Amino acid sequence: MSQLTGIAASNGIAIAKAYLLETPDLTFETKKDQNPEEEIQRLEAAIEKSKSELEKIKAHAKEKMGDEHAEIFSAHLLVLDDPELIQPIEDKIKSDQVNAEAALDETANMFITMFENMDNEYMRERAADIRDVTKRILAHLLERPFPNPALIDEEVVVVAQDLTPSDTAQLNKQFVKGFTTDIGGRTSHSAIMARSLEIPAVVGAKEVTQTINDGDMVIIDGLDGTVLINPDDSERKAYEQKQAQFEEQKAEWAKLKDEPSVTADDKRVELVANIGTPDDVEGVLRNGGEGVGLYRTEFLYMGKSSLPTEEEQYDAYKAVLEGVGSDKPVVVRTLDIGGDKELDYLDLPKELNPFLGFRAIRFCLERDDIFRTQLRALLRASVYGNLKIMFPMVATIDEFKQAKAILLEEKDNLKQEGKEVSDDIEVGIMVEIPSTAVIARQFAKEVDFFSIGTNDLIQYTMAADRMNEKVSYLYQPYHPAILNLVSNVIEAAHAEGKWAGMCGEMAGDPIAIPILLGLGLDEFSMSATSILPARSQLLKLSKEEISSYKDEILSKSTAEEVVEFVKNITES
Amino acid sequence: MSQLTGIAASNGIAIAKAYLLETPDLTFETKKDQNPEEEIQRLEAAIEKSKSELEKIKAHAKEKMGDEHAEIFSAHLLVLDDPELIQPIEDKIKSDQVNAEAALDETANMFITMFENMDNEYMRERAADIRDVTKRILAHLLERPFPNPALIDEEVVVVAQDLTPSDTAQLNKQFVKGFTTDIGGRTSHSAIMARSLEIPAVVGAKEVTQTINDGDMVIIDGLDGTVLINPDDSERKAYEQKQAQFEEQKAEWAKLKDEPSVTADDKRVELVANIGTPDDVEGVLRNGGEGVGLYRTEFLYMGKSSLPTEEEQYDAYKAVLEGVGSDKPVVVRTLDIGGDKELDYLDLPKELNPFLGFRAIRFCLERDDIFRTQLRALLRASVYGNLKIMFPMVATIDEFKQAKAILLEEKDNLKQEGKEVSDDIEVGIMVEIPSTAVIARQFAKEVDFFSIGTNDLIQYTMAADRMNEKVSYLYQPYHPAILNLVSNVIEAAHAEGKWAGMCGEMAGDPIAIPILLGLGLDEFSMSATSILPARSQLLKLSKEEISSYKDEILSKSTAEEVVEFVKNITES
Repeated sequence: MSQLTGIAASNGIAIAKAYLLETPDLTFETKKDQNPEEEIQRLEAAIEKSKSELEKIKAHAKEKMGDEHAEIFSAHLLVLDDPELIQPIEDKIKSDQVNAEAALDETANMFITMFENMDNEYMRERAADIRDVTKRILAHLLERPFPNPALIDEEVVVVAQDLTPSDTAQLNKQFVKGFTTDIGGRTSHSAIMARSLEIPAVVGAKEVTQTINDGDMVIIDGLDGTVLINPDDSERKAYEQKQAQFEEQKAEWAKLKDEPSVTADDKRVELVANIGTPDDVEGVLRNGGEGVGLYRTEFLYMGKSSLPTEEEQYDAYKAVLEGVGSDKPVVVRTLDIGGDKELDYLDLPKELNPFLGFRAIRFCLERDDIFRTQLRALLRASVYGNLKIMFPMVATIDEFKQAKAILLEEKDNLKQEGKEVSDDIEVGIMVEIPSTAVIARQFAKEVDFFSIGTNDLIQYTMAADRMNEKVSYLYQPYHPAILNLVSNVIEAAHAEGKWAGMCGEMAGDPIAIPILLGLGLDEFSMSATSILPARSQLLKLSKEEISSYKDEILSKSTAEEVVEFVKNITES
Repeated sequence: MSQLTGIAASNGIAIAKAYLLETPDLTFETKKDQNPEEEIQRLEAAIEKSKSELEKIKAHAKEKMGDEHAEIFSAHLLVLDDPELIQPIEDKIKSDQVNAEAALDETANMFITMFENMDNEYMRERAADIRDVTKRILAHLLERPFPNPALIDEEVVVVAQDLTPSDTAQLNKQFVKGFTTDIGGRTSHSAIMARSLEIPAVVGAKEVTQTINDGDMVIIDGLDGTVLINPDDSERKAYEQKQAQFEEQKAEWAKLKDEPSVTADDKRVELVANIGTPDDVEGVLRNGGEGVGLYRTEFLYMGKSSLPTEEEQYDAYKAVLEGVGSDKPVVVRTLDIGGDKELDYLDLPKELNPFLGFRAIRFCLERDDIFRTQLRALLRASVYGNLKIMFPMVATIDEFKQAKAILLEEKDNLKQEGKEVSDDIEVGIMVEIPSTAVIARQFAKEVDFFSIGTNDLIQYTMAADRMNEKVSYLYQPYHPAILNLVSNVIEAAHAEGKWAGMCGEMAGDPIAIPILLGLGLDEFSMSATSILPARSQLLKLSKEEISSYKDEILSKSTAEEVVEFVKNITES
């Protein structure tokens, strides 16, 4: 048995055989004097196998993640059906009498080079599609299995360097019992995805792909970040017990599904979920979410070749509002693109410091054509539920006023067009820029609510890129400066009779929850799977008692001092 | 006459002929069947001319900017003396019977490609040297004058796209009456340099190089940002009058040189200067500076091929302390490298968001070998004056404690080595990260003083890269969030009996000065040339009156509201 340690990214324990998600070695030998007919037959068989695989993956992605996620595979299938690509390969087999591998590789590379050198983002995307598809055909020709997580049909633990969105789109929760990766942290894409899929995960374990072989028995402990490889019987038994205990606890939590979120001293807060697509709504309801505190609308814009239309957006927003139910709030964040999130078809400027750059509301106020389309779709959908709209990355009151004025203009336009629009839409902002947290009192007069986005607020307040390993030690959610800003925002909201929520990773963190409760936070928005544990935790906390320590917590000097103090007062 | 508008970057008015600082067109024709002897002669003559030019430039740079700035030209001269480069050019002239231009270009390119592809930062630097020198020789061969600002011997106004540090190193203040550039802002290198050289400048005027021809008569109004091209007589007369008035005002200001910095209600503050090299000290004294509020030590590390030794640094620090005089404070900032300031020989990691990355104290705490060398040099120099040390980019109290512990260790080490060290060195921090400004009260218990670095503080607080044009509208010094943070820092310092200064560009800004005075700032550190105007402005301001408006200023919602309010109360 050997053991690795990483970051506990998603609760639970998985015990299963390892499935290594790695591209196989696709090197091949060029062979001359081959029988062209045989080679063409081999090629066509490999293409057919690739097609049927891709059809399955696409159907799976569509079912599990929605149409937009399936689109990438449609693009791959189009490549396989394109005679302008396939015919030249067959021609080359005939004329050069080489093996199918060599003909495929040479022809594909020619197209890839040609497309990549075009000054056209769309064609460059096609080059990437051809590269992906070529690898798949080649794998079949070489009979070296290409990993197809979508086709997994036995219980496994997925082991990978990292998981891309298209990898996770393919994971079948029925068989994938957990996963572990070499890289990533608690806020990386793969970690967020694991929580959304509700499977145990340990990320950033550094050398799992090097240490684990395909088929090894692996235990993933998503509660404490341990990965065990080929455990002995007693180890395995111990973890099966821990797993059973966790399942028991989950069953206890499940009983809280339809209960209110209240503290030991009977104070009510709101526990809501962060979502990315309409398909996530089911998980919110299953986990007892009291609504949606952050609907990230970027997924509508990503993995596509053009902007989503007003209709497409309207359908998605309506689906979420109807799915959640008209009594529960749905807070939609308008487009937050730029920074680390690029859209190929928009051709955003390359920036030296994208996190300090032209993104989110800054972009939307300049490209108000894109912004207005989204706002119209939201306004039209508003009649189907309890919609609240918030703008991301607001740094000045002017930006908020401009954005709100555009919203009101589009509302008027829609009414003049005879369309129905709700008159009860709250309009708020994300608080994720220090300036906004500092003058929250001034903002509170203008907005209907605040939602604190801690992922960004922390990185700006500490001036440390959370993706940069060299400074990630400065990403400190419990740093007294962060807590002072959070407290300032909450006080400012309450002074004006408004509410303050939080939709960063911090809101679902068991160490942060007592602190935030003590600071008076009204709404906690988190991964759906964190809601029931949070509700269970709240039952044991006295809001009044923790609030009495507020000034003491805020005057601590370091994050460590804060954590120690809070542990003491909540455990006593 | 035509007119352009840019950013007023350095006070004063210049009227002189334009000197276009642009690399000439160096395209040439390859000629075959040339007389090798003649071509070799032409080559050698061009090399000689280049050498004598570089000698002059080097001597000038050394005199005006110090040894370290001259080093780049020594490197160029070494290239010109390198037989391994020159011999192959002559060989090619003989063997191929081509003209000297073609032989030079082909040979140089071969070396450049070779060096650039080496995995060795030093050799890549040599490639850059060869490229620079080749251009210079080629310019002489083609008889197309290569601009040599160092060799200017008549009064001119320099017109350039931008000015590099090596360009400004060559400017002779005796003849260069002012300059104007297409790009840059008030905090760009060229703007800071203009103020340090005390010559009028208008930067970011967008199309000056396109609009102005060499030899055009040009007026640079560094007071309001205007550039006039070929003015008529009446225009010129008006500006000569304005120039005379400005000179008169300067003469008035000069009378304040040895006066204290006091307000109308007799409150004392400290007006000190930002400097980069020991040579800047003379300007500080000439402008009545009461000391140095920010000595940027990066220049010691830049434009070199290796780290400065303890001795080199000791000499520089001693020179500054002795130059300023033992009664006046000199606040030295320890190395702030990384971010936008790279050092080739250190091979720092490329970062996605360098401004939020591994820089300044973060780097120094990891590379404490480099840090200790600087601290030892500073400690040894401390006996020659009133030294204060501050650490840049401190985000947590742990970082400050670690840095201070290293300082104290080196102090002990020096004492054990029998070296003399002052026992009165104040140790403080730059406040340029929002977290530090927010919990200034906690920091104030640990540090001896604060110096607020507004250039960075503003960009982090607003989450806007100040170099990124798309978001530069968010670089708002008067934003109420900035003023609230500044106020918090000052109050925190005073509560613990410490002092608070400011060394960002804001401290010398006539609009900011009344606000900062009202907030209680103790020390204002600025470009030396801003000191006398600031002293003159202070004489007209009542600290007590402005302080009474403090809460009102801090509760404003926007930067515009702040500016309007402050104008009203100071003009009434």
